[in-house]
Amino acid sequence: MNITIIKIGSNIIDNSDALPQFLDLFTRYPDKKILVHGGGVMATKMANRLGIPTQMHQGRRITSPEMLQVAAMVYAGWFNKHIVAGLQARGCSAIGLSGADANLIPAHKRPVADIDYGEVGDVYPEEINTGIISTLMFKDLTPVVCSITHDLEGRLLNTNADTIASTLAIALAPFYHTRLVYCFEQKGVLSNAQDPDSVIPLITRKTYLKLKEDGVVSGGMLPKIDNAYHALESGVKEVYIKHALHLGDSVESLLILGA
Amino acid sequence: MNITIIKIGSNIIDNSDALPQFLDLFTRYPDKKILVHGGGVMATKMANRLGIPTQMHQGRRITSPEMLQVAAMVYAGWFNKHIVAGLQARGCSAIGLSGADANLIPAHKRPVADIDYGEVGDVYPEEINTGIISTLMFKDLTPVVCSITHDLEGRLLNTNADTIASTLAIALAPFYHTRLVYCFEQKGVLSNAQDPDSVIPLITRKTYLKLKEDGVVSGGMLPKIDNAYHALESGVKEVYIKHALHLGDSVESLLILGA
Repeated sequence: MNITIIKIGSNIIDNSDALPQFLDLFTRYPDKKILVHGGGVMATKMANRLGIPTQMHQGRRITSPEMLQVAAMVYAGWFNKHIVAGLQARGCSAIGLSGADANLIPAHKRPVADIDYGEVGDVYPEEINTGIISTLMFKDLTPVVCSITHDLEGRLLNTNADTIASTLAIALAPFYHTRLVYCFEQKGVLSNAQDPDSVIPLITRKTYLKLKEDGVVSGGMLPKIDNAYHALESGVKEVYIKHALHLGDSVESLLILGA
Repeated sequence: MNITIIKIGSNIIDNSDALPQFLDLFTRYPDKKILVHGGGVMATKMANRLGIPTQMHQGRRITSPEMLQVAAMVYAGWFNKHIVAGLQARGCSAIGLSGADANLIPAHKRPVADIDYGEVGDVYPEEINTGIISTLMFKDLTPVVCSITHDLEGRLLNTNADTIASTLAIALAPFYHTRLVYCFEQKGVLSNAQDPDSVIPLITRKTYLKLKEDGVVSGGMLPKIDNAYHALESGVKEVYIKHALHLGDSVESLLILGA
């Protein structure tokens, strides 16, 4: 059986025009599927309104206890339930989950090295509770997973949504033909950063190394593709990088292990 | 099979001393069980911090769209996940749900009569998705339900947590021996408002009418007991009114239909 894990970002969930369009596409998407989301942009806005400072280190959020509470409220409370209600309205029987629910995603507070990331959880595929996913799938329920995890000692933790998506995909790979779709602001991996239509349709590991060497792929795209190849090496069959509003068509970059 | 629906209030969930004690008692509670909660006190505090006005009419919240967002964040986001993580830490495999999740509790926006309550949902036992409850129970999962519902048209709604609890209990009554436990600030229904230990252990409908006639029961307790008798008349076997920290013992008022 196929299962597709689709990760969306703030550019969709925090956009009242784009979100309904995406939910239409997601509902029509034919496979068994799981939606994964965070909501960092709105968490930052909400924190500002509450006078809670936002701290970042190399693009990653440092999560104070106050910020963790905001993240849980925004991700698990507002966005998760708003998305679930929107999917229910479209006939897609969604069920919202955090990593704490049914112990879906146990996590480990990141050890303090040079930087203390605070209330941040690292997650491992072998600890994912895949049983609950199969139970829900069997009942034709579609999981909508937000990027809040827990440490099995009563503490909620914040985990990067890209990481949640790839970890879920890797955990499910032994049981399903598993695809991972990373939606982001562009239509795919671009061969020319100035041309939003210059999507590279197929990337193998070999061509990726070449693209990296030639400097075609750089910056924030590198960790995303590295993450994708880690998933492919761990049993995920295909990874797509594409725009959420192209979920229904084949404007995308398909990443495979290849030769 | 027995099932017990236990409703707790802000005096427990918004209290860092009482909540862990309650979660211990809830975990040890022997029956299949469902926990129902709102979180109105913290929602009001959060709304104040965000500069959103709180409007009440006869003790009921008037829910503006901004307040609905706060309620969803506080109930479904923070408290629900905080409680679920706390139960997971105690070995109780909890799963948090709003009424939108798996379409558990469809609701109808309350029609505007004298008062426009705003984003408030009325709920009916015959519309509850009892199937998902049975599915989760069968997998030894314990539902933790927050008082957010949805209208099946994509809109989240706010519903009184006492009403959610009694509606769930009535919906489950045809399938299970169903008990409803209303936890509140007192140890039970008191025969003397000045004496917190004057708990009336057993109340039948006949004795309730007498208590009402004699003015022993009055004020905010009346709708709670009326609600309880509505549940009993609709198939719920027993209703308990008690303090959450007495969940493990029999300090309580037991309400039955009686002779």
